[in-house]
Amino acid sequence: MGISNSDAHDKTLFTPGPLTTSRTVKQAMLRDLGSRDTQFIETVQRVRDKLLAAAGLAQSQGYECVLMQGSGTFSVESVLTSTISPEGKLLAIVNGAYGERIVKICARHGIGTVVVRSLENEVPSIAEVERALTENESIEMAAIVHCETTSGILNPVREIGALVHRHGKRYFVDSMSAFGAVPFDFQACRIDYLVSSANKCVEGVPGFGYALCRREALESTSGWARTVSLDLLAQLQGLERNGQFRFTPPTHAILAFDQALTELEREGGVEGRGKRYQANYKTLVQGMGALGFVEYVPDEVRGPIITAFRYPRDEHFEFDLFYRRLSDKGYVIYPGKVTDADCFRIGNIGRIYPDDVEALLQAIGVVMQEMGIATPAEESLQPVRAS
Amino acid sequence: MGISNSDAHDKTLFTPGPLTTSRTVKQAMLRDLGSRDTQFIETVQRVRDKLLAAAGLAQSQGYECVLMQGSGTFSVESVLTSTISPEGKLLAIVNGAYGERIVKICARHGIGTVVVRSLENEVPSIAEVERALTENESIEMAAIVHCETTSGILNPVREIGALVHRHGKRYFVDSMSAFGAVPFDFQACRIDYLVSSANKCVEGVPGFGYALCRREALESTSGWARTVSLDLLAQLQGLERNGQFRFTPPTHAILAFDQALTELEREGGVEGRGKRYQANYKTLVQGMGALGFVEYVPDEVRGPIITAFRYPRDEHFEFDLFYRRLSDKGYVIYPGKVTDADCFRIGNIGRIYPDDVEALLQAIGVVMQEMGIATPAEESLQPVRAS
Repeated sequence: MGISNSDAHDKTLFTPGPLTTSRTVKQAMLRDLGSRDTQFIETVQRVRDKLLAAAGLAQSQGYECVLMQGSGTFSVESVLTSTISPEGKLLAIVNGAYGERIVKICARHGIGTVVVRSLENEVPSIAEVERALTENESIEMAAIVHCETTSGILNPVREIGALVHRHGKRYFVDSMSAFGAVPFDFQACRIDYLVSSANKCVEGVPGFGYALCRREALESTSGWARTVSLDLLAQLQGLERNGQFRFTPPTHAILAFDQALTELEREGGVEGRGKRYQANYKTLVQGMGALGFVEYVPDEVRGPIITAFRYPRDEHFEFDLFYRRLSDKGYVIYPGKVTDADCFRIGNIGRIYPDDVEALLQAIGVVMQEMGIATPAEESLQPVRAS
Repeated sequence: MGISNSDAHDKTLFTPGPLTTSRTVKQAMLRDLGSRDTQFIETVQRVRDKLLAAAGLAQSQGYECVLMQGSGTFSVESVLTSTISPEGKLLAIVNGAYGERIVKICARHGIGTVVVRSLENEVPSIAEVERALTENESIEMAAIVHCETTSGILNPVREIGALVHRHGKRYFVDSMSAFGAVPFDFQACRIDYLVSSANKCVEGVPGFGYALCRREALESTSGWARTVSLDLLAQLQGLERNGQFRFTPPTHAILAFDQALTELEREGGVEGRGKRYQANYKTLVQGMGALGFVEYVPDEVRGPIITAFRYPRDEHFEFDLFYRRLSDKGYVIYPGKVTDADCFRIGNIGRIYPDDVEALLQAIGVVMQEMGIATPAEESLQPVRAS
């Protein structure tokens, strides 16, 4: 540890992405490759293979990786609008804004949904999911967000996957902010489609997302795609025909991602990266606790990616000013997104280390002092921190 | 002229994009900015303003620039699926693959189309367009491709625009490969929506496209968007709410594009860039003619962006080998796409100069010799070049 790899000139990003990336990842973009160039085609194939490998999968096991231009949401919309039949319904298991986005996308396309909602700091009720699956035969697929960036909660993707599989339904996991850093057994989770994006835990730059797909499932979706650009099966078929994208790929972002995957391997893969993020996360939560901040999500279901902290109960706290002062000092945090509590969020992914988190914590302490916000030491008789 | 600015390590790209870009454009990506960062938000606003200015427009005149993640086709699908009412039809004026793509996108979304087709090396018949507009009252918008990359033909966007306007219809121009280098009067062309992408004549890197929109037209489309990711009006509203994208933007590609727009200005804007491309184009066509190649599109309607050349009538010519040998020498050309003739294409846009084109021509001469393909000098009694 002890290394601070963030760019000397830019602020350190404690956000859910775009993230701070390594210098070498960015330098990989100092090239112009043609999209039909052999070297580029080889890069695309290597990226696809390595993404499968990062999930413990291989083509030979019947899995495919499809890259899709645009932000992560484009990949989510790609899966939803390509893999549900015209008559089929989606079971959406929702406990945050990204789950709600899945519902919104389906509504826009006239795809029927059955929605099981839980509170934003609670994992879904297995019994309710079971009931929804039992009562609605037209459900073809269930969808859940792995780590809900809204709150940072980590959902039980394996338990739910087993249930969905038992009911003979397809299973879609939006693992946007977890994939690459939270180890899990893809096959044991019974996942048919998983989506993430380039600028998350693999530590690339934004520009595309990707879907890891069970080939047999995807192959059965012919004719279902509701768009051209986001047609998942056509995108796979294009890549298989000649190794090329159907439409112009973000060549530079893909070159950066290839380098990012090399750096992920060097760090010990998903396990290794997960360890660094865990160290970042522990440093963060411990330090924030010492400063009197309280997490929104209970410890036992909190993910190690991004943490929502409740606003301190102090009249001097004003988030916009707090954010701005930290930003002026070179630390970018993230506003809240949960609907039932005033929170802000701090991410600990990207090319940052515990030392960077320590530096952030120090800056937060200074800003609190500047703003006249009490810390536990100062008000030991009236602890801010709830149990 | 006399400057060769292509990267020393990479091949020079004579393609329709991704293109060879300047070193400084790529170096602008050596940063990580948060997507909510003030500096990034200012960059996005500057990029939107400069794109309007490059079209001779301003917000105060009632125009808006909307950036959209993904390839150029994503922006085309965004306009088509966001700006036609549930009952409305599109008049598609088609003379190449990109016009056909517009028809395909509409079909996928159940948007009715009236199609006026002409040969791939002929501009559309004004009389046929007029008849289609007269006979089909449910047409809400007409769409045409400005420079059809399929053949390189330059379509009469102003003449057609006047006609469409006279019929009280909206007008969408896919100016993917022309915008930024082919001067035209946006308002005189009566355009409501124009689309291009980052990796074309502005010489940025791929990752997003953009739509220049007449605000009043776009504002009337509320509730029509058929997707979430490609919802054009929602994308504008998101940018206006807080200067941010609704979904993660390709921050690095946008930083590169900001630099590319600065370099476009330094070159004298659209006029200045157009002059360099014209010089490239003239060098190319003259040199290819001397080597015995014949253009597919007649001179008077050929655009200065990309040129389709017919395969030489020589049994020794084999495109794949020709392509590979040129690529091995560091010059990347492009395969053909027209449906009724064997052609290949050579683009002359991107950070390339007449000297680069001269170098390509020399390499083509050498490859022809290597492959035993006759050039006019060698077979002066039996000229390959048709009149």
